[in-house]
Amino acid sequence: MTFTPLTAELVVAFEGIVGPAHVLTAARTEALVYEAYGRDHTEDFLFPPDVVLRPGTVEEVSAIMRLCHEHHIPITARGAGTGLSGAALPVHQGVLLSMERFNKILNIDEQSLQATVEPGVVTEAFQNAVQEVGLFYPPDPASKGSCFLGGNLSQSSGGPKAVKYGTTRDYVLNLEVVLPTGDVIWTGANTLKYATGYNLTQLMVGSEGTLGIITKAVFRLLPYPQHNILMLVPFRQEAQAAAAVSAVFRAGIIPSGMEFMEREAIAWSSDYLKIPLTLPDDITAHLLIELDGQDLDQLYKEAEKVYEVLETYDVGEILLADTAAQKDDLWRIRRNIGNSVRYNSVYKEEDTVVPRAELPTLLKGVKEIGARYGFKSVCYGHAGDGNLHVNIIRGDLSEEQWTTGLRAPISEIFALCVRLGGTISGEHGIGLVQKPYLHIALKEANLNLMRGIKQVFDPHGILNPGKIF
Amino acid sequence: MTFTPLTAELVVAFEGIVGPAHVLTAARTEALVYEAYGRDHTEDFLFPPDVVLRPGTVEEVSAIMRLCHEHHIPITARGAGTGLSGAALPVHQGVLLSMERFNKILNIDEQSLQATVEPGVVTEAFQNAVQEVGLFYPPDPASKGSCFLGGNLSQSSGGPKAVKYGTTRDYVLNLEVVLPTGDVIWTGANTLKYATGYNLTQLMVGSEGTLGIITKAVFRLLPYPQHNILMLVPFRQEAQAAAAVSAVFRAGIIPSGMEFMEREAIAWSSDYLKIPLTLPDDITAHLLIELDGQDLDQLYKEAEKVYEVLETYDVGEILLADTAAQKDDLWRIRRNIGNSVRYNSVYKEEDTVVPRAELPTLLKGVKEIGARYGFKSVCYGHAGDGNLHVNIIRGDLSEEQWTTGLRAPISEIFALCVRLGGTISGEHGIGLVQKPYLHIALKEANLNLMRGIKQVFDPHGILNPGKIF
Repeated sequence: MTFTPLTAELVVAFEGIVGPAHVLTAARTEALVYEAYGRDHTEDFLFPPDVVLRPGTVEEVSAIMRLCHEHHIPITARGAGTGLSGAALPVHQGVLLSMERFNKILNIDEQSLQATVEPGVVTEAFQNAVQEVGLFYPPDPASKGSCFLGGNLSQSSGGPKAVKYGTTRDYVLNLEVVLPTGDVIWTGANTLKYATGYNLTQLMVGSEGTLGIITKAVFRLLPYPQHNILMLVPFRQEAQAAAAVSAVFRAGIIPSGMEFMEREAIAWSSDYLKIPLTLPDDITAHLLIELDGQDLDQLYKEAEKVYEVLETYDVGEILLADTAAQKDDLWRIRRNIGNSVRYNSVYKEEDTVVPRAELPTLLKGVKEIGARYGFKSVCYGHAGDGNLHVNIIRGDLSEEQWTTGLRAPISEIFALCVRLGGTISGEHGIGLVQKPYLHIALKEANLNLMRGIKQVFDPHGILNPGKIF
Repeated sequence: MTFTPLTAELVVAFEGIVGPAHVLTAARTEALVYEAYGRDHTEDFLFPPDVVLRPGTVEEVSAIMRLCHEHHIPITARGAGTGLSGAALPVHQGVLLSMERFNKILNIDEQSLQATVEPGVVTEAFQNAVQEVGLFYPPDPASKGSCFLGGNLSQSSGGPKAVKYGTTRDYVLNLEVVLPTGDVIWTGANTLKYATGYNLTQLMVGSEGTLGIITKAVFRLLPYPQHNILMLVPFRQEAQAAAAVSAVFRAGIIPSGMEFMEREAIAWSSDYLKIPLTLPDDITAHLLIELDGQDLDQLYKEAEKVYEVLETYDVGEILLADTAAQKDDLWRIRRNIGNSVRYNSVYKEEDTVVPRAELPTLLKGVKEIGARYGFKSVCYGHAGDGNLHVNIIRGDLSEEQWTTGLRAPISEIFALCVRLGGTISGEHGIGLVQKPYLHIALKEANLNLMRGIKQVFDPHGILNPGKIF
């Protein structure tokens, strides 16, 4: 794919579309501010774009797209930059399209339990807004306090509540999308059921900005669950923690959270947050289990059943969070594992996912592969989904070991996932960093279909080039 | 699209692939048996194919596809033929690929709560098999006793439980698909989360056999809900029944069934089944409301809340089904509305869907349009989803009124759906009969994307030609 370099004339044309205040170039922008648009939360990559555009309306996005399409200029959409696969990095330079001004909740329909939002709304802000009217938007990535709904859609983001409630994919009903031609379409309808031709909505979700630019989204909502119970369960053997997960489901319980944390994950994060936590020497892993619902008595009954299941395993003293503050602390510890690992060391995060019951096998395999290749990993994640985040710590690895030496062991980990019926990304996407491994999960025939679809949407290949394949 | 006529040589080649016993032609098959392959449950259409093939393995499907692809022979996959949009009718003749021999449940994984099945398994047989080990597959189209899972996948089928549990789309994790080239792919992974390139699984669901032939499917399962409560609620005004639907959700309740039935729908069906039902003169519509869960006390609490909501409407005497037999009767009445309408008259069924709260407006609009154009309709459906089945009764309409005179009013009904944020099919698909109306729901830019995707999967256009667009 060859692209046309950005000319001064095009910059002027962009200024005419979005206004000069929303056209940022390296020459006239404070270095740190500009550099931030070339980074996301993936390792320590930096890819500054030729120009940053901050459109405010769908008409502006349409006009920008038409111009980039006509002139073969790469265009990479960016949400909040919290992604972990490098999908928002403008690796071929060109235009970085920051969606930060698309930050309005346009409508909350309390009768149909739906909301229409712009893609630059912060996930947690949206959750809070619907909660104020008694409604619930479940998807909650770890970065929910800063990530954008548009990014969540592009990466098919999940989070702890996915185990009971599903991921972003399961809440989107309809998307307004700008195509490279400048055409603006709605992908579906604002309905819970849809059987009207190919499902373009679901095709857009997880397409990482390579097929079109999302400018509005309609989400379905649920009644807000009024109560929850949270328990932290220490295990003396990691494999037992992983095995207990399936047993809880088999008892007829679907927890609203079922998180696995290795000893080091929880230790690093509580240290990082300065939240004191007693961690007996013989404890190697924890499950954080949340139950939610509309009726507290019912939840206590369910909690009793969970206790009964857990008693059949070798567990330490279970901590039942008593207060809102205690619950908040436990969830903060869980959510800040990534940050604490980042604080300790540069790391690579792998987003492995397997059928739930294969989690013990995957975990054992990851450790075995690490031992063989001499790297350390901190593992944690959404055990209820079989979604294990493997953080490979740079530690004392040499530059060569870090940049090329890890390819073989990462390939082995991914091959193990696929052998177990899983795949190489559950909720982070392929983006830049998993691209070299995609052939492990997908056959050439699959990739050819995807390339063909890409060609249909984006014949000049301008949308987020260099990603996925 | 021009196709090559089927030659005697190709029939011999097909015999070589599937064996002579599984190659049916009109000349050597009993007329009634052969004719059945040219019909489905859509109106009174008949499109006999050139040949019926009944493959038994994926290798056979692959060999058939390669041959059809090479020789430009149309190939239309058929499940149980219970579809309501004509999607299984071989309108361009060629090969009818009956999937009836793909009838095995290959695996039920009780640890990961997943099952692998062939597409010719009857939906209810699958539900019963997983229920035997305490598990639950919720999608339950009205025809669940005879329809195939493969057909459910192709049409994105729903059913009464979709309101709480979602449709077929929400349970499929991974599909084995044969492409026209004969290539066999898996579209995804056996995982609850998936962010590994474009979602081909979701693209296949609802594609009505136009992109590939499904030969295996992996579904996720839930713990089986041990208890349920069923109530039949009579209303004196249809609009109040439709309005009560939203109010129940706003009270924090998500019923596992929330069905709307016009007076005539329930009267015709109970007559048809000879199940006696008291129907006071002033009752114009009913809601059938089901609650389910693991705890009966909890369900009674929820039922009380539902009663409180309903008390604010003008309802008749609520029937709380006491016994399993009584519940079964009520569900049979609901499920047999379609059959009873068919028994009374030829009819056209429209599968309208709107945001839940727009249901009263849609219902009023349908009746107003019917009055203006002089046709009678029987309306019922999944009120919790905003999915209203409008059965237009042939009654005394002339041949011309029936075949061409209804296009204008049906177009008006669909345009109303779209204006209300809805679309022209919620769970039946576009197939043959809704094709002329697709432009009401979708812009040319949407249709062009779909045509492009079709071209990528099926460059010779052999798969189920004449459907969707």
